[in-house]
Amino acid sequence: MAIRRAKISVIGSGFTGATTALMLAQKELGDVVLVDIPAMEDPTKGKALDMLEASPVQGFDAKITGTSNYEDTKDSDLVIITAGIARKPGMSRDDLVNTNAKIMKSVAKEIVKFSPETFIVVLTNPVDAMTYTVFKESGLPKERVIGQSGVLDTARFRTFVAEELNLSVKDVTGFVLGGHGDDMVPLIRYSYAGGIPLEKLIPKDRLDAIVERTRKGGGEIVGLLGNGSAYYAPAASLTVMAEAIIKDQRRVLPSIAYLEGEYGYSNIYLGVPTVLGGKGIEEIIELDLTDDERAELDKSAESVKNVLDVLE
Amino acid sequence: MAIRRAKISVIGSGFTGATTALMLAQKELGDVVLVDIPAMEDPTKGKALDMLEASPVQGFDAKITGTSNYEDTKDSDLVIITAGIARKPGMSRDDLVNTNAKIMKSVAKEIVKFSPETFIVVLTNPVDAMTYTVFKESGLPKERVIGQSGVLDTARFRTFVAEELNLSVKDVTGFVLGGHGDDMVPLIRYSYAGGIPLEKLIPKDRLDAIVERTRKGGGEIVGLLGNGSAYYAPAASLTVMAEAIIKDQRRVLPSIAYLEGEYGYSNIYLGVPTVLGGKGIEEIIELDLTDDERAELDKSAESVKNVLDVLE
Amino acid sequence: MAIRRAKISVIGSGFTGATTALMLAQKELGDVVLVDIPAMEDPTKGKALDMLEASPVQGFDAKITGTSNYEDTKDSDLVIITAGIARKPGMSRDDLVNTNAKIMKSVAKEIVKFSPETFIVVLTNPVDAMTYTVFKESGLPKERVIGQSGVLDTARFRTFVAEELNLSVKDVTGFVLGGHGDDMVPLIRYSYAGGIPLEKLIPKDRLDAIVERTRKGGGEIVGLLGNGSAYYAPAASLTVMAEAIIKDQRRVLPSIAYLEGEYGYSNIYLGVPTVLGGKGIEEIIELDLTDDERAELDKSAESVKNVLDVLE
Amino acid sequence: MAIRRAKISVIGSGFTGATTALMLAQKELGDVVLVDIPAMEDPTKGKALDMLEASPVQGFDAKITGTSNYEDTKDSDLVIITAGIARKPGMSRDDLVNTNAKIMKSVAKEIVKFSPETFIVVLTNPVDAMTYTVFKESGLPKERVIGQSGVLDTARFRTFVAEELNLSVKDVTGFVLGGHGDDMVPLIRYSYAGGIPLEKLIPKDRLDAIVERTRKGGGEIVGLLGNGSAYYAPAASLTVMAEAIIKDQRRVLPSIAYLEGEYGYSNIYLGVPTVLGGKGIEEIIELDLTDDERAELDKSAESVKNVLDVLE
Repeated sequence: MAIRRAKISVIGSGFTGATTALMLAQKELGDVVLVDIPAMEDPTKGKALDMLEASPVQGFDAKITGTSNYEDTKDSDLVIITAGIARKPGMSRDDLVNTNAKIMKSVAKEIVKFSPETFIVVLTNPVDAMTYTVFKESGLPKERVIGQSGVLDTARFRTFVAEELNLSVKDVTGFVLGGHGDDMVPLIRYSYAGGIPLEKLIPKDRLDAIVERTRKGGGEIVGLLGNGSAYYAPAASLTVMAEAIIKDQRRVLPSIAYLEGEYGYSNIYLGVPTVLGGKGIEEIIELDLTDDERAELDKSAESVKNVLDVLE
Repeated sequence: MAIRRAKISVIGSGFTGATTALMLAQKELGDVVLVDIPAMEDPTKGKALDMLEASPVQGFDAKITGTSNYEDTKDSDLVIITAGIARKPGMSRDDLVNTNAKIMKSVAKEIVKFSPETFIVVLTNPVDAMTYTVFKESGLPKERVIGQSGVLDTARFRTFVAEELNLSVKDVTGFVLGGHGDDMVPLIRYSYAGGIPLEKLIPKDRLDAIVERTRKGGGEIVGLLGNGSAYYAPAASLTVMAEAIIKDQRRVLPSIAYLEGEYGYSNIYLGVPTVLGGKGIEEIIELDLTDDERAELDKSAESVKNVLDVLE
Repeated sequence: MAIRRAKISVIGSGFTGATTALMLAQKELGDVVLVDIPAMEDPTKGKALDMLEASPVQGFDAKITGTSNYEDTKDSDLVIITAGIARKPGMSRDDLVNTNAKIMKSVAKEIVKFSPETFIVVLTNPVDAMTYTVFKESGLPKERVIGQSGVLDTARFRTFVAEELNLSVKDVTGFVLGGHGDDMVPLIRYSYAGGIPLEKLIPKDRLDAIVERTRKGGGEIVGLLGNGSAYYAPAASLTVMAEAIIKDQRRVLPSIAYLEGEYGYSNIYLGVPTVLGGKGIEEIIELDLTDDERAELDKSAESVKNVLDVLE
Repeated sequence: MAIRRAKISVIGSGFTGATTALMLAQKELGDVVLVDIPAMEDPTKGKALDMLEASPVQGFDAKITGTSNYEDTKDSDLVIITAGIARKPGMSRDDLVNTNAKIMKSVAKEIVKFSPETFIVVLTNPVDAMTYTVFKESGLPKERVIGQSGVLDTARFRTFVAEELNLSVKDVTGFVLGGHGDDMVPLIRYSYAGGIPLEKLIPKDRLDAIVERTRKGGGEIVGLLGNGSAYYAPAASLTVMAEAIIKDQRRVLPSIAYLEGEYGYSNIYLGVPTVLGGKGIEEIIELDLTDDERAELDKSAESVKNVLDVLE
C-alpha cells in the first residue's frame, strides 16, 4: 500500500483557524483543509491559496485547501474546531453558549459523516462545554475528542515567567488544571525554570501577579487589539496538540478531557494533565491535590457544570 | 565582547507586517520590533504579545515587541517596511503613490536616525518607486536598500506549476525580471521542475495561463478575500530575504535593486537577479536577454519611471 | 484506529547506516531500527543507544533500536540497505560483486519475510547491480525497490559549484543520469545557479574540472580519510529519498530505477530522473538526449550490464 | 558594516568532534572549522568535505573546513575542545590527566593566539580538570571558559526516564550537580515528567536503577561499542551549549563553571546550574542543598581537587 500523507481539517477560517492551518503546514504534519460557512467560502479559499503560495519560500510540502463543503474533509485523521462566535457586548453568556453549542452540533455531525474515525480538538469557547457538546454529538470515543485550554494558559504563564527571570522560554514550564482563564487552577509547585521550582526564584507577590496576568491573558490581548482576540498563541497551542497526535509522541500536555471518576468527577470535560499520542488521550494523569487546589478545582468544575446546565 | 542577537524591525503591523514578525521569530533570526503609528500602538502591542506567547509552544527564542516609538528600533540590523496604504476604490494611482511616498520618507528618516547602518527591505507598493524613495531619503548605500517583488512573484509561479505537474514545490523554480504583477517579466526558459525546463513539461497554452495567473496573483487573492490583500506569501518572501542577509547566505534571489548601468538602466530601482548576503545586495547578475524579453523589460522600466515622475 | 508512527529499518550499522539512522530520527520521519549481523550486535546497540541519548537534547521523538534480529524490523514502511563490504586492495571487482550480491540476497529475503509490503532503498555498491539483485530476490514491485546514486552525485556537484561561484548551496542544482561515479552522465545543460544555466556562469574548463571532480568524488573522500569512505553525504542522500517517500512529497530526484523500455533499456536498473512519493517511484521522467549524452548513457548501461553478467 | 556569520572551531576531529561539526552546521549556527593535528590533517579534511557535500541535500548553509593549522581558526566566536586521548588499558589515571592537560595547554595557547576574545567549551576528560587547565592557560575571563558534562548526563537520564514511562523525551527533565559520571550528583527532586516530580511517578528502586545507569552511561556505551566511546549524545550536548551562546538564549543548562565562593567552593571548576547566553556563563544559580546532596557534592569536589593535584 502507498504511504498516505495525514489529512487535517480546520473548521473556522478566522484568524485562529487560518494561523493554525499555516502552522500545521509549516510543520508538514499533513495536508490541510480549511473549512468555513458558504458565506465565507471565498475568503477561506483566499487564505488557503495565500498560504499555499508561501510554501515554496518557506520550504514546506502541504496541500492547503479552502472550502465550505464538508465533503472535502473526507477521511481526515484529525479535525480542529475553531468555529464559533465571540461574546459581543450586550450578549448574555447563555446566548453565547447556546449559539456556539448549536454550531458545535452542526459541525460535529458533518465531521463524523465524512471522517467517522477521526480525532477532534476543540478550541471554541466556553471550551469545556463545547468539547462536551462535540463529544456527545459526534458519538466518537472519549479519547478522540479533546479540548484545548491548558497548553495556551501555560504558554502565557511561561512567557511571563521567562520575561520576569530574563530566561529562555525553552527552560520555563507551567502547570494548570481546571478551566480556561478565570477558572484556571495553576499548580505553581509544579512550575519551574530550569527545573527549579518557581517559588524559589520569584517572590510570592510577583508570582501572584503573573498568575493573575495569566488568568486574564486572553482579556489582555482583547483589550490591546481592541477588535478581536488572540490567535497566534492559540494556534500554536492547537498545533502542538495536533503534532502530539499525528506523530504519536505521547507528550504530557494539559487537555480538556472527559472524566469518568478521575479527580472525583464524572460526565464532565475538565482540564487535566494527559498523555497525548496516536490514540488521542492515552492517559489521564491523576495527582494528589492540596486542599486549596482541590477547592479551586471544585470551583472550576462547578463553573463548567453551570455552563452545561445552560445547554440542557 | 558578548555575542549579540540580531535585531530586526518591521514597520507596519498590518497582516503582512505581523506575519513577517512571526516568521522571523520562528526562524530565530533575531529579536523583532513591530512598529506602527501611535493610533495603532495598542493593537501592535497586542499582536506582538500574542506572538511572544506562542514562543514557548513553538519553541523559539525571540523577543517580540510592539511599539509606536522609533527609539525602540535603535541599532536594528535590518528593517522591513510594510507600512503604507492600499489603493482604495476611487483613489487615483497618483494619490496612492504620493501618499505612500510620504509615508516612506517619514519612515526612512526615523529608521536611519536610530539605525544609521541598517539594511532596509521594502514591500510597500508601488514597490519599485517606494524603494527608490526610501533609498533617496535614507542616504544609505544602494546595496543596503532593497525591494521585494520577485521572490513573491516566483513563489506564486512555483505554486501554480507544482500544482499543474503535481510535484513538490521544493523542486520547482521560477525566474522573473522587472516590476511586480502586471509589469513582471517572466523568464520561462530559466524556470524548471526538477531541473527540466518547464517548456518541455507543460504545453505552451497552459504555461501562458500560469504566467497570466501569476501576473494577476495579487489580484486573485484580493478578489477572494474581498477585503484586504495577500499577506502569508508576502511575509514568507520578506523572511527569506531577511534570512539571506542576516545569515550571510549569498542566495540568488530576485530583488528590486538600484541600477547604475546594469541592463542598460540607471537611477532606477528595478527587479533583477541578485546575490543577497551579509552586505545586502552583493551582486547584480546580468543576463543576455532575447529581444522580446528586452522589450518587456523596457516596458517594465518605463512603467517604473512613470511612477517616479509622479513623485517629482 | 490509532495513528501509527512510520517505521524505518536501516540495514548495516557502519558509518553510513548509523549516520542515516541519526538523520532519519532528527527529521522525526519515524522510529528507526538499525540492523547488523550478530557479530556486530553490541556495537549496533551501542550506536543506537548513543543516538537515542542525543534525542532529548536535539529535541526529536524517535525510538532508535539496534539489533541483529530481523524480527525487530517487522512491519517496516521503508528499509534502507547500506550493508556490504567495500573493495579491499587485491580484491577483484567480480569478488566484490559476488560477495555483496550474496549479502543483498540474504538481506532482501529477511526484509520481505517481516515486511512484505515495504519500500527498499539500496546504497550498497555496485549500486545498480545490487538494487537489481534486491529487486529480483525480494519479489517486490519495481516501484518499491530503488537505488541511490544520483542524489549523492548531484550533492557533490552542487557543493563544488557553490564553492566555485561562492553562492548558497540552496540555489545550485545539478542533474545526472546513468551510473554512479565514473559511469555518471552529467547533464550540465540542466544544471543551474539561481536558475541560470551553469554554462553561462562558469568557463568550460572549470566546469569540466568540476564534473571530473564529481566523478571522482567518492575516491576523493576515500583518499583523504585513508581508511574508509564517505558517509555524511551518502546518509543525507538516503534520508532525503526516505523523506520523499514517507512524507509522500512527489519530489523530482534522480533514482536508480528498473527500466522497462524507458530510455530504450529493459531489464536493468539505471539512474534516471524520477518522481519519488508515497508509492515509491511514481514516475520515470524521460528526456530527449543529445547524441553525446546518449552515447555516454549507453556506456553507463553497458557497464551496469557487465556487472550483472558477473552475477549470472 | 556587513553582517558576518558566526565562526565556530572544533578542536579534535574524532567521532565526537566531527559529529559536533555536523550538528553545528545543520543548525546553521555558523561556519565551522574542524581542527586536528598535522598527522590527521587529511582525514580531517575528508570528514569536513564529506559533511559539506551533505549540505545541499540537508539544506544548510555553512562552510565546513578541515585543517591542522590554527591560523584557520582566526576570529572564532566559539571554540569547542574535544581533543585528547581516552584512557587505554593499563594507563594510570594520572598519566591520562597529564597527557590531556598537556594537550589542553597547547590547544588553549593556539586558540587565544588567533581568537583572543573567544568562548571555549571543553569536553575532554577528566573534564573538570581539563576546563580548569584551559581556563588558566588561555587567560580568558572565567565566564568564557565552560565545561560540558551535565547536559550529557541529564540527556541520558531523560532518555532512561522517558523509556521507563513511555513518554516523549521532550517532557522529561533532569537535574545534576557536580562531576561527570560517577561523581555526578543527581537532584531527583528537581527532575520531572510533564512537570510532575519523578518520585511521584517512578518507584524508588527503579529510580535508583536509572540514576545508577546514568552514572555508568558513558561506560555502557563503551562496553557496547567495544572500541571507542559515545559521540552522538556528547556532540548534541556541545551543540546545545554552543547554540545558547551563539544565539544569546540565556538557557538554564548545567555547566562546569569556575567557582569563586558559589556553593562554598573556590578556585575550582565544578558542575552547577548556569545561565548560558551571549556573555557565556551569565549566572551561576545557587540552590539550597540537603545534607545528603551537600555531602555528595563535597565528594565530587574532592574528586576534582584530587585530579587537579595530579596536575601540579
